[in-house]
Amino acid sequence: MRRPAEHLAPAVTAAERASPEAIRRRLDSLTKPQGSLGFLETIALQLALIHGDPPPPATRRTVFVLAADHGVARRGVSAYPPEVTAQMCRNYARGGAAINVFARSVGASVVVADLGVDGEISDVDGIVHAKVRRGTRDLTEEPALRDDEVDQAIDAGARLVWETAPDADIVALGEMGIGNTTAASAIAALATGAAPDRVVGPGTGVAGPRLSLKRHAVERAVHRCGTGLGALDILAQVGGLEIAGLVGVALAAAARQRPVVIDGFISTAAALLAVRLAPAVRDYLFASHRSPEPGHAALLTALGLRPIFELDLRLGEGTGAVLALPVIEAAGAMLREMATFAGAGVATRISEEPTP
Amino acid sequence: MRRPAEHLAPAVTAAERASPEAIRRRLDSLTKPQGSLGFLETIALQLALIHGDPPPPATRRTVFVLAADHGVARRGVSAYPPEVTAQMCRNYARGGAAINVFARSVGASVVVADLGVDGEISDVDGIVHAKVRRGTRDLTEEPALRDDEVDQAIDAGARLVWETAPDADIVALGEMGIGNTTAASAIAALATGAAPDRVVGPGTGVAGPRLSLKRHAVERAVHRCGTGLGALDILAQVGGLEIAGLVGVALAAAARQRPVVIDGFISTAAALLAVRLAPAVRDYLFASHRSPEPGHAALLTALGLRPIFELDLRLGEGTGAVLALPVIEAAGAMLREMATFAGAGVATRISEEPTP
Repeated sequence: MRRPAEHLAPAVTAAERASPEAIRRRLDSLTKPQGSLGFLETIALQLALIHGDPPPPATRRTVFVLAADHGVARRGVSAYPPEVTAQMCRNYARGGAAINVFARSVGASVVVADLGVDGEISDVDGIVHAKVRRGTRDLTEEPALRDDEVDQAIDAGARLVWETAPDADIVALGEMGIGNTTAASAIAALATGAAPDRVVGPGTGVAGPRLSLKRHAVERAVHRCGTGLGALDILAQVGGLEIAGLVGVALAAAARQRPVVIDGFISTAAALLAVRLAPAVRDYLFASHRSPEPGHAALLTALGLRPIFELDLRLGEGTGAVLALPVIEAAGAMLREMATFAGAGVATRISEEPTP
Repeated sequence: MRRPAEHLAPAVTAAERASPEAIRRRLDSLTKPQGSLGFLETIALQLALIHGDPPPPATRRTVFVLAADHGVARRGVSAYPPEVTAQMCRNYARGGAAINVFARSVGASVVVADLGVDGEISDVDGIVHAKVRRGTRDLTEEPALRDDEVDQAIDAGARLVWETAPDADIVALGEMGIGNTTAASAIAALATGAAPDRVVGPGTGVAGPRLSLKRHAVERAVHRCGTGLGALDILAQVGGLEIAGLVGVALAAAARQRPVVIDGFISTAAALLAVRLAPAVRDYLFASHRSPEPGHAALLTALGLRPIFELDLRLGEGTGAVLALPVIEAAGAMLREMATFAGAGVATRISEEPTP
């Protein structure tokens, strides 16, 4: 029997709805010095490859905030107690968290889903209840998830795209889970081969003995797992359920040819695993920001992605991703609405050299 | 008789509508790890100092695009012919330029003003006609402007704020003028003491002999002017009219206690001169981006401003400034709308160290 990821992956096709050369010629015909809009022109090119030129407006924007707990959190790797995951889910449902505020500010809908919160929140309205299990097992000692649990979480993520946001024009990835920078560090080490101490950082603010404890936890997990694991095995070994869910979101959104905007360290780990499962996912990815978390840079490099911001964000929830939506939208509008030199009667670049 | 800048400057008062300590305590009480929203928290703090805590929404957004020509452009310092300034003004009036597209995308109004275009565009509707003279004199050979021309331009800029956007909640600075990176380089050298070759760059794309010519022009201007000039004398010596106009916009907007978002190299040069005239202007400035133009970094450093983006933008027009508006808005919304730990029943940071 094929696993959900094996169903989803072949549906993701390369983004080649327009010819890169033709898009570049169009960008150069617009009333601005060639290349003067810098990285925005690269974003516009990518949107046109996804959608055709010009890309349509991305009016319907959805950020998926997937929540789950991590067994390793009981070891004290986080500066916050594990019950904060469930408490924050209630905060999301009431609209009081940073992601709610930022999403409202940029006109995005928030879909919050419980993929594996270690707490009873089934009474909370406004959350998709898709709990696979209450938290993962402790990744330092044993596989965090069984294969079928990984599959359930990926499937739940894909269903979120299909069922809660079938009309979304653009998708942003967010997450919440006390302890999940520890899991993401282990994923970064296992997926890129980076040494654990290069991809472990302060997360939401650990230092001193707690940071040593976190580094040690990642080292133990990596040592336990060995090398050469595939994406699904990495998810089973170190989790987490929200990360597996985001893999499903990314696969399903890319299969629908929708831009997927990643956020910080954890969602970027999910994106890298999605690309390992279906390399064409890369064509749909936009990196919103680079966090100070050292592993984030390693993951962005592995994906070959340039972030739009560097704002020292280390919150997650999709906060950086939604802030990038207006920038991505403006880049698309460039191809849709800007006048050309010929159309506007503007003189083009002087070709000859000046006389001294 | 006092000059317009001497009337405007004393009206700019320090932004201290709230206590920094109280704002920081409020930021730390919101449901996020302390400091985890990074630079956005610094932006939120600045908005609260300007407006009080919480800052109101910045719904009415205006970008001022001031246009003027430069005598030095006839020397071939730009990759584009001088007539492009007038042609682009017609493009702005028709809504076809990048700034029109981006401003629509983020919900900002565009006010275009002719402060000194060397072309007949008085027939163009949708532009404020405030021409002081047709372009500046050649800064390599003589003062670009007379004192009364500087004064007229500053006054015209201030009037734009009062008359075209009296209700604006936030103001962005933009400009257009073939040759104006040459003038801005001269301003950067004169105002910061940096060597001309450290603040001359490719502008909209000059290289080779044309870049040498541009560097030489700035060196001649700086040599002609000597050192120790004040802001108004710098404007008279090297211009330009759109830059003097932006000084007026910045002074008038800051006097009205409105956030002023600067764009690239040229508008940042104007902002630095405004701060020299009225140091409290600094409290109202937000740097949207850092362009690859080497002088831009020197100016941002002189102002002590951290840019929100680094997107390799080198277009001007206010394009980077308007893209920063949603980010600044989201930072304000953080203080306005986010729940507190206590209010949301979320556990705070663990204070004790973990047991090994």
